[in-house]
Amino acid sequence: MDRYYRANLINSITGYKSINLIGTISKNGIPNLAVFSQVIHLGADPPLIGVIFRPVIKGMNTLENAEETGCFTLNHVMPDMVQKAHWTSAKWQVPEFSEVGFEEEYKKGFPAPFVKESQVKIGLHFEAKYPIKINGTYLAAGRIEILEVPDFAVGSDGFVDLLKTETVAGFGLDGYYSSGSFVRYSYAKPDKMPDPI
Amino acid sequence: MDRYYRANLINSITGYKSINLIGTISKNGIPNLAVFSQVIHLGADPPLIGVIFRPVIKGMNTLENAEETGCFTLNHVMPDMVQKAHWTSAKWQVPEFSEVGFEEEYKKGFPAPFVKESQVKIGLHFEAKYPIKINGTYLAAGRIEILEVPDFAVGSDGFVDLLKTETVAGFGLDGYYSSGSFVRYSYAKPDKMPDPI
Repeated sequence: MDRYYRANLINSITGYKSINLIGTISKNGIPNLAVFSQVIHLGADPPLIGVIFRPVIKGMNTLENAEETGCFTLNHVMPDMVQKAHWTSAKWQVPEFSEVGFEEEYKKGFPAPFVKESQVKIGLHFEAKYPIKINGTYLAAGRIEILEVPDFAVGSDGFVDLLKTETVAGFGLDGYYSSGSFVRYSYAKPDKMPDPI
Repeated sequence: MDRYYRANLINSITGYKSINLIGTISKNGIPNLAVFSQVIHLGADPPLIGVIFRPVIKGMNTLENAEETGCFTLNHVMPDMVQKAHWTSAKWQVPEFSEVGFEEEYKKGFPAPFVKESQVKIGLHFEAKYPIKINGTYLAAGRIEILEVPDFAVGSDGFVDLLKTETVAGFGLDGYYSSGSFVRYSYAKPDKMPDPI
């Protein structure tokens, strides 16, 4: 099987994916932003979220920053944020926020940056990482410390209507879904915003 | 925070979820079927899928069966399967397949049952489980051995159009999404099919 074909196929078949922009900051104060589709609910009490990280590659700083500073943020992606969100997946040598055009938002006592444009923002304390030896990936667990969801999207029983927040879903490796259809974007490079394919 | 409110809220905020029926069989040949929203892509080469399991409770046999027989299946849920799929989450003392009304499908040399009604079927070899010590859950890793996806849904580059397979997504704890809207179902009990809420 061709490598790209395999990647598309295997990334597609687990079904709909959660899409989040993860914000971190290095110990030297350099912000980082990257789009992730491997985010999963781990438990409600204590409130824990898991993120799968690929083997750490130089220049891929999200996991390193989260460990070093003890925090990271998850930010839902809305339809008008998709193209920029995908662009964060390019191999940037400079902070993604300003390059792709998102605004950093900081909250008191919490070092990691949020994405101001997002309607749903989650600030997490980095708790632990667990090696998944079979393929060198890691599951990182974060505990929710800050949660911002618009009131109009939260039901009286706590259920959040993701249609009201306009949260986007992931399809496969490069597809983003909202309002009954999806768009795919080209492989992201720093020099140019990715195009729909 | 009220326990149910917290469960709904925290289960909602990771965004869209993958929904799969997981089929297993005990070493004594008793089939088991349960709906899961904690399924995640781990890697494409080798093709690995992860599933988060709660602390093992007596009567919750999916993880135990997968370990003992070395295999399990994932089956996407289509709109007309949702109510029955949710019903599998009841605390059944008898095999769910016949009780909720799904048909078991077996493939040569593969002991775990597939759900015949599903359009996307994945047969996995159970590889390992990794304890997530912080809350007593486990990440189980399975390697794909069998994959059935309808030809009409697979692009020339391997991308699977989940709208063509009519795959359903998960919202929160008890919500199922398809075609631009979602439905929630009542807490599932064996004696009666769950109702929309």
